[in-house]
Amino acid sequence: MSFRASVLTLYPQMFPGHLGQSLAGRALERGDWLLETVQIRDFASDKHRSVDDTPAGGGAGMVLKPDVLAAAIDHTIPDDDERPRLLMSPRGRPLTQERVRDLAAGTGVVLVCGRFEGVDQRVIDARCLEEVSVGDYILSGGEPAALSLLDAVIRLLPGVMGNQQSGASESFEDGLLEYPHYTRPQTWEGQTIPDVLVSGDHSKIDAWRREKSEKLTEERRPDLFEAKKKPQQG
Amino acid sequence: MSFRASVLTLYPQMFPGHLGQSLAGRALERGDWLLETVQIRDFASDKHRSVDDTPAGGGAGMVLKPDVLAAAIDHTIPDDDERPRLLMSPRGRPLTQERVRDLAAGTGVVLVCGRFEGVDQRVIDARCLEEVSVGDYILSGGEPAALSLLDAVIRLLPGVMGNQQSGASESFEDGLLEYPHYTRPQTWEGQTIPDVLVSGDHSKIDAWRREKSEKLTEERRPDLFEAKKKPQQG
Repeated sequence: MSFRASVLTLYPQMFPGHLGQSLAGRALERGDWLLETVQIRDFASDKHRSVDDTPAGGGAGMVLKPDVLAAAIDHTIPDDDERPRLLMSPRGRPLTQERVRDLAAGTGVVLVCGRFEGVDQRVIDARCLEEVSVGDYILSGGEPAALSLLDAVIRLLPGVMGNQQSGASESFEDGLLEYPHYTRPQTWEGQTIPDVLVSGDHSKIDAWRREKSEKLTEERRPDLFEAKKKPQQG
Repeated sequence: MSFRASVLTLYPQMFPGHLGQSLAGRALERGDWLLETVQIRDFASDKHRSVDDTPAGGGAGMVLKPDVLAAAIDHTIPDDDERPRLLMSPRGRPLTQERVRDLAAGTGVVLVCGRFEGVDQRVIDARCLEEVSVGDYILSGGEPAALSLLDAVIRLLPGVMGNQQSGASESFEDGLLEYPHYTRPQTWEGQTIPDVLVSGDHSKIDAWRREKSEKLTEERRPDLFEAKKKPQQG
């Protein structure tokens, strides 16, 4: 069964966006994954088709109405649909590669994209939406976040990457950032590829790469480095 | 002078993508920001127009060649161009809202999008590319990351948001996640808006929101919560 993504948004025209190109695009054409977009505004009940209202208690911005979003969700997700329901939000728990792998191993995902100042908390609670953040920065809405999450998941679906990248050792896969890469020419602008990498001695190459990975992680991501060290101290 | 974004990529057709819609799209039409895409492949020098080669030392995937990328960069960026040059990469330092604000206050940005296994380290060093990560997950390439970064920056450019979101209190702006939002109807599926928010007592509302922000941050983002507490302990 193909991986099924349902996206609830006020901007369905933003999809598939870059996911319609390259590997993800060809996988979409082949039917390796399916994309459904749902226009939240179609579920507005008043004559102005309004989807938002001012925040209770005051403040700037507008809040997505609980009744409208709930109607869109109830229309999209039947009771027996067990796909994770994620609300793209900077208030969420950060997306990790581990979570991406879990999602890719499932049957699909429902992504709710907020706009405006936020989403009424009651619909988040009543419809069991899990808030997920793609990073500690503010986007114009949930759509760019949903596109990034789907991109990360789709490349892991069976058959999508083929031999192009599969099996590549990657940042985060072992809790470390990736070591530096080099390719031909051997000498470029007076700089040569490190000798060890052209030595043919694979145990030396592995040791060099491991050392570089650890040094880079310690320097740039002390948070990951500490988390990595902990289990070894136990 | 308008904010100028130059994107070096093997998939220029992925741009402007979702940035051609909604607020960012209207700002692009008005000329509030300018977008230039550069096809890296145009700078390949062999007859096959190859841009990548196998990694020195072995391993899966392909590495972007230093000579080709350097030629694309040198063509795109004149010597007196002082815009930041960012390489979108999971090995980079994490993008933060503070960095987004700094970028939005500048004249523009040059974004290099990698594909394949990685980019030759020599060109990263020789052309002073700063590696930036949008999150701890692996994307199909730098393009979705560049689109997210630009989205975050563009919404902060003068005139882009208008009154729609400006001045809104936001997650990360004060080091905390945002408090829960509510809007009409007052009662929805038997759940009411918290009394304090409809009390009209603004100091009580502020205190309630602050408490909710702190509790949510402590629960979901102990890393942010600890970082926030530290200066107060000094």
